[in-house]
Amino acid sequence: MATKTAYPFRVEPQEVDFSLRITLAALGGNILNIAGIDAHSKGFGVDALNKDNFSWVLSRIAFEFDRRPAEYADYEISTWISDYGRMLSTRNFELTDRSGVRFGRVVSQWCMLDLTKRTAVDLRAVAESHNEAIVDVPSPAEKPCKVPAPATEPVLTHRVAYTDIDFNRHVNTMRYIELMLDVLPIERFAEERPLRLDINFLKEARYGDTLSVAIEERAAQTLVEIRNDGGAAVCRGAFEWR
Amino acid sequence: MATKTAYPFRVEPQEVDFSLRITLAALGGNILNIAGIDAHSKGFGVDALNKDNFSWVLSRIAFEFDRRPAEYADYEISTWISDYGRMLSTRNFELTDRSGVRFGRVVSQWCMLDLTKRTAVDLRAVAESHNEAIVDVPSPAEKPCKVPAPATEPVLTHRVAYTDIDFNRHVNTMRYIELMLDVLPIERFAEERPLRLDINFLKEARYGDTLSVAIEERAAQTLVEIRNDGGAAVCRGAFEWR
Repeated sequence: MATKTAYPFRVEPQEVDFSLRITLAALGGNILNIAGIDAHSKGFGVDALNKDNFSWVLSRIAFEFDRRPAEYADYEISTWISDYGRMLSTRNFELTDRSGVRFGRVVSQWCMLDLTKRTAVDLRAVAESHNEAIVDVPSPAEKPCKVPAPATEPVLTHRVAYTDIDFNRHVNTMRYIELMLDVLPIERFAEERPLRLDINFLKEARYGDTLSVAIEERAAQTLVEIRNDGGAAVCRGAFEWR
Repeated sequence: MATKTAYPFRVEPQEVDFSLRITLAALGGNILNIAGIDAHSKGFGVDALNKDNFSWVLSRIAFEFDRRPAEYADYEISTWISDYGRMLSTRNFELTDRSGVRFGRVVSQWCMLDLTKRTAVDLRAVAESHNEAIVDVPSPAEKPCKVPAPATEPVLTHRVAYTDIDFNRHVNTMRYIELMLDVLPIERFAEERPLRLDINFLKEARYGDTLSVAIEERAAQTLVEIRNDGGAAVCRGAFEWR
């Protein structure tokens, strides 16, 4: 049976914000990159799937960070797949500091897309390589929740340009996260409070689309929604500082 | 006497565009990060300078890329300081592929800013640590040129938000480069042609500023300018595909 795989990191100067701690965007980017590298090294990365014109698509993700490490701090991201069903594969992450204290827990759910038919692939079709990668350790946090829609008007618009898109010409996941961070009050990043962030990816946005971003404070949550030209939700996030 | 320092890289999936080759933004980011890491390891990084409330500021940079490496390709970035004057220190970079073929040459010029007085520091004041780092190898390409201003109206505007700014609350260098790439015709990135790109950094932009970007094709060059709310040039770039 497989075991968790751990990757070493150090907070680099270009990853910190004015609080001199690593940004959520940089942490999220490193976590997603590790997902890609780990899948690649195990033979079911995007590059291998592309031969069948399949691709992994992130459906939902939940991040829990107790704190954001400071510049030059060493930390480790470990990852494992805990289970998969017909439609979704669950990839988990834990972030630990140099003294072994766990400060981050992430649960992500991925579906496999047939790029020709534009439909989801039944994951039982790839069971062979996938089964070998399963690690018998449960997710370190609650699975990502369904995020409610904010009932507010957009406060930011952004036309999708070259540097926003990935190899598929779709907006890359990190840019969605950055757009959500950009509508939060900037003071939120000066604080050092534990955060849970749930994100649902609902539709793809493409080069030339104009996206708009709405935000609503509702009870303990800050809800953010990215909408396309037609007003449909592309992506929703719920921030909860604890 | 010091020698060039080399850092190994691999083109990661999140760094490629739809042509499946590394983006100029990713290459530029890695090059600038190496500048920071190399200065830090030699004792004159931003962190050491900050004790005196000094900081390195990038004044001009010229990139020459014969091609952009493909996904998962290994390459190396080596860097060295070739010389410095009263105001500017010259840091060079060479990019070589796995078979030792050089495909990139970069020359950058940095000044040291006294953040309290907002004036440039005479580099002779830091000669001691700097002298030891000088490598007696000339710059691998022509020094960065003065870039002329395009005489056109802006085609893109962008309000500076949280994810655009660095630890100093100024727009980070990579975001300027991304904004310049975002106004180019997207077809330019489908081509595989040698490129020289000269960039001049003229003013700082801050959180909340609204930037606008103008572009003009002039003879063999594509000129791009980022302007602030008052219409003053913040940054200029000249792209020349050869």
